[in-house]
Amino acid sequence: VRDVFPEVIFCPGKTPEQIAVIFNKLAAQGTNVLATRATEEVFDVVKNEVRDAVFHPVARLITVKKKDFPRAGKVAVVTAGTSDLPVAEEAAISLELMGAEVVRIYDVGVAGIHRLFDRLEDINEARVLIVVAGMEGALASVVGGLTRRPVVAVPTSVGYGANFGGLSALLSMLNTCATGVGVVNIDNGFGAAALAFSILKSAED
Amino acid sequence: VRDVFPEVIFCPGKTPEQIAVIFNKLAAQGTNVLATRATEEVFDVVKNEVRDAVFHPVARLITVKKKDFPRAGKVAVVTAGTSDLPVAEEAAISLELMGAEVVRIYDVGVAGIHRLFDRLEDINEARVLIVVAGMEGALASVVGGLTRRPVVAVPTSVGYGANFGGLSALLSMLNTCATGVGVVNIDNGFGAAALAFSILKSAED
Amino acid sequence: VRDVFPEVIFCPGKTPEQIAVIFNKLAAQGTNVLATRATEEVFDVVKNEVRDAVFHPVARLITVKKKDFPRAGKVAVVTAGTSDLPVAEEAAISLELMGAEVVRIYDVGVAGIHRLFDRLEDINEARVLIVVAGMEGALASVVGGLTRRPVVAVPTSVGYGANFGGLSALLSMLNTCATGVGVVNIDNGFGAAALAFSILKSAED
Amino acid sequence: VRDVFPEVIFCPGKTPEQIAVIFNKLAAQGTNVLATRATEEVFDVVKNEVRDAVFHPVARLITVKKKDFPRAGKVAVVTAGTSDLPVAEEAAISLELMGAEVVRIYDVGVAGIHRLFDRLEDINEARVLIVVAGMEGALASVVGGLTRRPVVAVPTSVGYGANFGGLSALLSMLNTCATGVGVVNIDNGFGAAALAFSILKSAED
Amino acid sequence: VRDVFPEVIFCPGKTPEQIAVIFNKLAAQGTNVLATRATEEVFDVVKNEVRDAVFHPVARLITVKKKDFPRAGKVAVVTAGTSDLPVAEEAAISLELMGAEVVRIYDVGVAGIHRLFDRLEDINEARVLIVVAGMEGALASVVGGLTRRPVVAVPTSVGYGANFGGLSALLSMLNTCATGVGVVNIDNGFGAAALAFSILKSAED
Amino acid sequence: VRDVFPEVIFCPGKTPEQIAVIFNKLAAQGTNVLATRATEEVFDVVKNEVRDAVFHPVARLITVKKKDFPRAGKVAVVTAGTSDLPVAEEAAISLELMGAEVVRIYDVGVAGIHRLFDRLEDINEARVLIVVAGMEGALASVVGGLTRRPVVAVPTSVGYGANFGGLSALLSMLNTCATGVGVVNIDNGFGAAALAFSILKSAED
Amino acid sequence: VRDVFPEVIFCPGKTPEQIAVIFNKLAAQGTNVLATRATEEVFDVVKNEVRDAVFHPVARLITVKKKDFPRAGKVAVVTAGTSDLPVAEEAAISLELMGAEVVRIYDVGVAGIHRLFDRLEDINEARVLIVVAGMEGALASVVGGLTRRPVVAVPTSVGYGANFGGLSALLSMLNTCATGVGVVNIDNGFGAAALAFSILKSAED
Amino acid sequence: VRDVFPEVIFCPGKTPEQIAVIFNKLAAQGTNVLATRATEEVFDVVKNEVRDAVFHPVARLITVKKKDFPRAGKVAVVTAGTSDLPVAEEAAISLELMGAEVVRIYDVGVAGIHRLFDRLEDINEARVLIVVAGMEGALASVVGGLTRRPVVAVPTSVGYGANFGGLSALLSMLNTCATGVGVVNIDNGFGAAALAFSILKSAED
Ligand SMILES: Nc1ncnc2c1ncn2[C@@H]1O[C@H](COP(=O)(O)O)[C@@H](O)[C@H]1O
Ligand SMILES: Nc1ncnc2c1ncn2[C@@H]1O[C@H](COP(=O)(O)O)[C@@H](O)[C@H]1O
Ligand SMILES: Nc1ncnc2c1ncn2[C@@H]1O[C@H](COP(=O)(O)O)[C@@H](O)[C@H]1O
Ligand SMILES: Nc1ncnc2c1ncn2[C@@H]1O[C@H](COP(=O)(O)O)[C@@H](O)[C@H]1O
Ligand SMILES: [Mg+2]
Ligand SMILES: [Mg+2]
Ligand SMILES: [Mg+2]
Ligand SMILES: [Mg+2]
Ligand SMILES: [Mg+2]
Ligand SMILES: [Mg+2]
Ligand SMILES: [Mg+2]
Ligand SMILES: [Mg+2]
Repeated sequence: VRDVFPEVIFCPGKTPEQIAVIFNKLAAQGTNVLATRATEEVFDVVKNEVRDAVFHPVARLITVKKKDFPRAGKVAVVTAGTSDLPVAEEAAISLELMGAEVVRIYDVGVAGIHRLFDRLEDINEARVLIVVAGMEGALASVVGGLTRRPVVAVPTSVGYGANFGGLSALLSMLNTCATGVGVVNIDNGFGAAALAFSILKSAED
Repeated sequence: VRDVFPEVIFCPGKTPEQIAVIFNKLAAQGTNVLATRATEEVFDVVKNEVRDAVFHPVARLITVKKKDFPRAGKVAVVTAGTSDLPVAEEAAISLELMGAEVVRIYDVGVAGIHRLFDRLEDINEARVLIVVAGMEGALASVVGGLTRRPVVAVPTSVGYGANFGGLSALLSMLNTCATGVGVVNIDNGFGAAALAFSILKSAED
Repeated sequence: VRDVFPEVIFCPGKTPEQIAVIFNKLAAQGTNVLATRATEEVFDVVKNEVRDAVFHPVARLITVKKKDFPRAGKVAVVTAGTSDLPVAEEAAISLELMGAEVVRIYDVGVAGIHRLFDRLEDINEARVLIVVAGMEGALASVVGGLTRRPVVAVPTSVGYGANFGGLSALLSMLNTCATGVGVVNIDNGFGAAALAFSILKSAED
Repeated sequence: VRDVFPEVIFCPGKTPEQIAVIFNKLAAQGTNVLATRATEEVFDVVKNEVRDAVFHPVARLITVKKKDFPRAGKVAVVTAGTSDLPVAEEAAISLELMGAEVVRIYDVGVAGIHRLFDRLEDINEARVLIVVAGMEGALASVVGGLTRRPVVAVPTSVGYGANFGGLSALLSMLNTCATGVGVVNIDNGFGAAALAFSILKSAED
Repeated sequence: VRDVFPEVIFCPGKTPEQIAVIFNKLAAQGTNVLATRATEEVFDVVKNEVRDAVFHPVARLITVKKKDFPRAGKVAVVTAGTSDLPVAEEAAISLELMGAEVVRIYDVGVAGIHRLFDRLEDINEARVLIVVAGMEGALASVVGGLTRRPVVAVPTSVGYGANFGGLSALLSMLNTCATGVGVVNIDNGFGAAALAFSILKSAED
Repeated sequence: VRDVFPEVIFCPGKTPEQIAVIFNKLAAQGTNVLATRATEEVFDVVKNEVRDAVFHPVARLITVKKKDFPRAGKVAVVTAGTSDLPVAEEAAISLELMGAEVVRIYDVGVAGIHRLFDRLEDINEARVLIVVAGMEGALASVVGGLTRRPVVAVPTSVGYGANFGGLSALLSMLNTCATGVGVVNIDNGFGAAALAFSILKSAED
Repeated sequence: VRDVFPEVIFCPGKTPEQIAVIFNKLAAQGTNVLATRATEEVFDVVKNEVRDAVFHPVARLITVKKKDFPRAGKVAVVTAGTSDLPVAEEAAISLELMGAEVVRIYDVGVAGIHRLFDRLEDINEARVLIVVAGMEGALASVVGGLTRRPVVAVPTSVGYGANFGGLSALLSMLNTCATGVGVVNIDNGFGAAALAFSILKSAED
Repeated sequence: VRDVFPEVIFCPGKTPEQIAVIFNKLAAQGTNVLATRATEEVFDVVKNEVRDAVFHPVARLITVKKKDFPRAGKVAVVTAGTSDLPVAEEAAISLELMGAEVVRIYDVGVAGIHRLFDRLEDINEARVLIVVAGMEGALASVVGGLTRRPVVAVPTSVGYGANFGGLSALLSMLNTCATGVGVVNIDNGFGAAALAFSILKSAED
C-alpha cells in the first residue's frame, strides 16, 4: 500500500495535536491520508488543520481524499454480527479510498446461516473476501468452504468470558478446515484491507 | 447414568489386571459394563475373565451387555471429519448400550457444508444432538443454528499447531453464537453420551 | 428458543437508541422481548418507546411480556454465593418468560455444604438444574454427583487473582468427575436458560 | 524437615548410579533416606549398595529407615480417585518415615459424596489433612469446608483435555471458597508431607 | 476460623448498604466482624450502623471487636517491598483480631538480602510465617530455606509486564525448591491469615 | 483448490491401508493426488496400489501427477533457516503440482540479513511470497516491509523453550508492523500453498 | 547501580506525598535521585520539596542531579516506532544521569528497514545497544544480527489484539536467532538502562 | 561471536551425516567449531570426519579447537541445583572455547542459601555472571542483588507441574526486583555464553 498511502496514522498513544500535525503534513503533499482508531476529539483538532478531512464515526477513521486511484476490483466484506461493524467499516472505507469496489454483506453469522446463503451471488462475484467475526469466528470457515477465492479472516474482540479478548475467534480462524484463508490480527480492519488490496494488485506489474 | 451403569471404568492409569478385576466384579452383578480408552492389550486380559466382553477398536471401548434397557429416544451423533470417529463412536456405542437409538451423521464438516444439508432430515428427527469436531469446531455452531433441540458439543484434540490440544475447538464451542449448546471436555465422548442420555430421560419421573 | 424469542438483544456495544429501536420493533410484533446486560441508562430510553417494558436491575434484563407460553416444567437454579446472583437471575427470569417454572436455590456453596443438603428435595423435583458458581466452581460437581438430571453449569467471573476472569470455574466444570454436566460460557446466564429450556422441550414433537 | 531428612533425592534427571552413590552416603551417616519418583530400575542399583533399602512401587519411593522419630500426630491423606494413589502414597509413606501417624481416606471424590461423609470421624481426628485430587479438584473445597484444621491441597495431573496437565485442579484449589487451605505444586506428594509435618511440629520449640 | 468469625464479608460486588446490613446483623450477635477489600465509601455507611466499627485504610478492612480471644501464638508477616503492604496488613490485622500475636518484618526483599538477615531472630521466634511478595516472589523460597516452620506464601499482583497480574509470583511460590511452603491465591491476605491461624490451633483439641 | 485437488489426504491418524485406498480411488479418477505428513512406511503401502506415486521425504508428501495444469504465476518461498525446510517444501511441491512456478529463497533469516538482500531480485519478481520461519519469525516482517506483494506467513514449530511449539513465531507474524501479510496455522505448508494459489488465480474469472 | 543511585523510586502504588518524602530524603543526602512512572500530579508535590527536581513528561521521570559521574561510554537506544518513546526515554535519561553518553536512533522499525541501515554508523560506535520495540519486536533480532556488541532488548506493550500486553514482542526477543541479546521485562526502560550501565562498567575494577 | 565462531551448529532436526558435513567444512577452514545439543550417536559420525573432535556428554557439545583466542576475562557460572548442569556446562565450555576464564559455582540454590554466601569471593571476582536455575529461578534475583556486575539469567526447564516447561523460572527472572539482569531463552546455555562474551569484549574496539 506504500504507493497508495505513504503512511497511515495509528491514533492510540498520540495526542490530537501530534496527529493533526502529521495529518496536515501528509495532506499537504497531495496524497490521500488515513488515520485509524480516531475519536471525535481527535477529529476536532484535525479539521482545524485540514478543512476537507472527513470523520467516519463507526469506522473510527479520519480520511482526506486528494486524488483518485484506478478502480481495483471487487472485495466482499462479510460480517457475522452488528458488533463487528467498526472493524468491517475500517476495512471497507480503507479499501474504497484505495480504489477498490466494496460489497458489504453484513450480519450473516452462522446462527442463522440462511442469511449467508441469500447472499451467495455477491460472494461469488468478489475477487477477494474479507470475513470479520468475533465470538467463535465460525463464519470464516463457512465462507472459506463456499469460495475458491482468497479469504482474509479478521477475528474481532467481540464477545465475553472464554472469548479472552478475541483469542477464541483467532484460534478458530487459524485452525480452519477450509482452504485459502489467511488471518490478520484481532480487530485489524485496516490490515485486512491492505492485504486484500495487495491481492487485487498482485496480477499487475 | 447411575441407574444404567453403576460404574464406568476409565482405563488410563490402571493395569490390565486391575481393569479385568473391576470389570468382572461388575459383570458378575448382572449389570452392563463399559470400559473407556481401552487397548487391545487390556482386552486380552479382560476377555479371559469375562467371556462375552466385546472390544470396539475404533471407539476404544470394552463392553458387556447383561440386560436390555427400554428404548430411550433418538440421538444424532454428528462429526466434522473422519479423524473425529474415535470420540464419536465412544459416544454412539455408549448410548446404544444405554438403550438410546443412534443416528450417525459423519464427515459433514463446514469445509463442504452441502454434505451437512443433505442430512437435514436426520438432524430434525433427533431429540438430542451430539456434535463432535476438532480443528476450529465450527460445526457445533452451524448445527446449533439449524436446530431447536439441545446440542451437546464435544471438542476433539484433532489438529495441530495453534490447535493447542483441542483448545481451539473448545473455545469455539463455548463462544458459540447459536443457542442451546452445552459443552463437555475435549475428547469426552462418554461424557457427551451420559449428558444426552440424561436429557432423553429428563421428561420421565 | 426461536419459537419463544425471535431475537434476544445483547446490549453491550449498542447505543441506548439502537436498543430501543430494536426492542420496539420486536414488541410491536407481539412477541415477548428480552434485552440482556442492560443498564438503568438503557432502560430510560427503552421505556419511552415501550411503556410496559420492565427493568430487572439484579439480572440486568429488560423484558416485555406480550403473550403467555404453556408451562414447561421445573428448573432449579442453584448458586454458590450471593455474588453469583446477577448471572443466576439472568437465567431465572429468562426461563420464567419462556414459561418454565423456576426454583431458586441460592447461596449453597461447598464451603458450607450442609446448606446444599437442606435443599435436596427441591433439587430432586427439578427436570433440569442450572448451577451458577465462580471461584473454584466446585458446586457443579457436587450437584452433578447428587442428581441423575441434566445439569447446565455456568462458570462466573466472580473471584480475583488466579481466577483469571472465570477461567478457574470454567476449567473445573469442564473437568468435572460427575456425569451429566454441560458447560456454557462464563457468565452466560441467558445461554444456560436457553439450553435448559430446549431440554425441557426435547420430549415434545 | 532438615532435622528428619538431611536431604531428599529427587530421581528424575539422575542416573541410577548417581542416585545409589548419594543414597549410600546418606544411609552411611545413619539417617533415614528418601528417594522420590524412583523406578524399579533405579532400585536394582540402589539395593546393591544399601541392602535394607525398600522400594514402594505405587508411591515410587525408595526408603531406608535407620532410626525412629518420636510420634508426631495424626495426618489424614484424602484422595478423590484411585488414579491419585501414587501422589497420595508418596505423601503418606514420607510422613510415616518422619514419625507421623497417617489415616488413609481414599476414593471419596465428590461424584459420590456420601463416601466422604462415611469417613467424617476419621477426618475430625486428624490434626492436619492432605487432600489429593485431579480433574476438577473440588474435593479440597469440600473437605476445607468441613474442617477447621489446616488442609494441604495437592492438585494432580490426573485427567485429560481441558485439564492441561493439572492446571484445572491447581486453579480450583487456589480459588477455593473454603478457608484454611494451602496449595503445593501439581503431583507434589512429598512437598505436601513436608508441609504437613512442619505444621505438626509448629507447636514444639 | 468458623469459631472466631462466623462469617467474613468480602465487599467487592456488594453495595455499601448491603454490607452495612450484614455487618450490623453479625455485630449484634456479639461476635467480632471483619469486612475485607472495603473502601472509605463503604465505611461511611457501615459506621452509621455500627458506631464502634474501625476502618484500616492500608489493609482495606473494617473491623469491630466484640470479644477477646485467647492468645494464639506468634506469626511473622514478611514482605518483599512496600507495595505489598495492603495484602500484608490484611493478613496481620485479621490475625490480631483472631488473637494471634503478629511480628511485622517488612521490606526485606531479595534485592537487598542483608535486610532479611538482620531480622533472623524475629523469624526464628515465629510458629508460622506468612511471606507476601509480588514481582518474582523469590522471598518465599529464601525464607522457606531459612526456617523449619510452616510458611504460608501469598503472591501479590504487584508488578507489571510479564508479571501478568501476579502469575509470576504465584508460579515461583508453587515451584519453590524450599520445603514447608503452602500457597494461597494472589493477594489473598485474609486467606493466609485463616490458614496461619488454623495452624496455630492445630495442636489444640 | 477444489478445481485442482478434489481432496487432499492429511495422513496423521489414518492407517497406511486407509491412505492407500483413498489415494488409489482419487488417482483412478484421473486427478493429481496429494497426501501430506506422509512417512516412508505409508509410502511403502501406497506405491503397491499406485505405481507412479512419488515420495518427497523432506516435504513428507506423496504425490501422483495425472494431468498438467496451466502455468499459474511465480511464487517465492522464503525460509529463515534449514530446519524450516520440511514446511517450505510442503508448500513448494504442492504449488508446483498445482501449476505454479516456485522460486526457493532458503536460509535468509534475519541473523544474517545480507543474505536476504542478495536475493532482492527474486523477491521482486514473485506475484505472491510465502515466508516460512520459526523461532521469533521476524523474517515475515522484514519481507513484508520490502514488498508490496501479498505475503503468506507460515510460523513453524522450530525452536525450543519460550517458543512454546510455534506460538512465538505465530504471535510475531500476527502482530507484524508490515502491511500485506496474512497468517496460516503453525507448520501449515499446504495451507500456505493453497492460499497463494488462490491469490494467483484471483484475477481470473 | 547501587553506587550511582542508592535507591530508585517506582511511583505506581505510592501517594504523591510518600514519593515526595522519599525523594527529599535521598536528595538531601546529596545523591542523584530518579523516580520512574511519575505523573504531572506527583511532580507538583515533589517540586515543593525539592526545588531543582526536573520532570520529563515523555519519559515519565522525575530527576534531580546532585553530582556528576565520570563519563561511562556510549549506548545506542534504538526504537521501532514513535509509540515506543516513553520506554526509550526512560532508558535514555536514566543512562544520562548515570554518566553514559546516549545516541538516540528512533523510529527505525523493520517495516521500513532502510531507515535502520541509514544509522549503521551510529550503531557501530556504541559499546552497548538497547532495542525498544512493541508489536512483533523483530527489530531486536535485526539489530542483534548486525552487531557484535551486547544488545539489551526491551519489549513494549505497544500494540493490540494478539499482542496480549507485550507478550508477542517478549517471546520474539527471547527466541531471537541473533546472538548476544539479553531481555528485560516488558516496558522496563529503567531496567534496560541499569543493565547497559553495568555492562559499560564491567571492565572496571 | 561471529569473530570467534563463524557458525554454531544446533543439532536437533539435522541428521548425523548433515552435522558431520557442516562440522568438517568449518573445521577445514581452521576455525574452532561448536555443535550444541549433540548426542553420542551424532558424535560417532562426526569423529569419523574430524579426528580431533571432542564430545562433552554432560554439556551435550561437540567441539574442536583449531586456534587459541586471547584471554577474555572471568565469567562465573552459577547454578541452583545439579539438574541444571547440562545447561551450565553448555555455557561454560562454550565460553572456555572463546577464550574466557570460567569459575563454576554449582549447587548453591536458595533452599540452602549459606552455600551461596560461602562463594562470595568468587562471585565478586567475575566480570560477568551467568545464573542458571530452574523451578522458581529465585537464584537470579539473589545473585543480582549481591553484585553490581551484569548478570545473564538462564531459566531451565528443570521441574514439573506448575513449572510448565520452564515458564516459572522464565517469568521469575523477567520480573526480578534486582537490577542488572538480562534474560535469555529457557535452557539456552550457549546463548548466555555468547552474551557474556560480548559483554567481556564490549570495552574493546
Ligand atoms: N488499525 C490499524 N491496525 C494495524 N496497523 C495499523 C492500523 N492503522 C495504522 N496501522 C499501521 O501502523 C503504522 C503507523 O505506525 P506509527 O508510525 O506509530 O503511526 C502505519 O504504517 C500502518 O501501517
Ligand atoms: N480478602 C478475601 N480474600 C479471599 N476470601 C475472602 C476475603 N474476604 C472474605 N473472604 C471469604 O469470602 C466469603 C464471603 O463470601 P460472600 O458470602 O459472597 O460474602 C467468606 O466466607 C470469607 O471466607
Ligand atoms: N498439511 C496440512 N495442513 C492443513 N490441512 C491439510 C493438510 N493436509 C491436508 N489438509 C486438509 O485437510 C483435509 C483432509 O481432511 P481428511 O478428510 O480428514 O483427510 C483436506 O481437505 C485438506 O484441505
Ligand atoms: N520503571 C521501573 N521498572 C522496573 N523496576 C523499577 C523501575 N523503577 C524503579 N524500579 C526498581 O524498583 C525498586 C523500587 O521499589 P520500591 O522500594 O517498592 O519503591 C528500585 O530498587 C528499582 O530498582
Ligand atoms: Mg476456500
Ligand atoms: Mg439451537
Ligand atoms: Mg449427574
Ligand atoms: Mg476449613
Ligand atoms: Mg522450610
Ligand atoms: Mg508489504
Ligand atoms: Mg549480535
Ligand atoms: Mg545487580
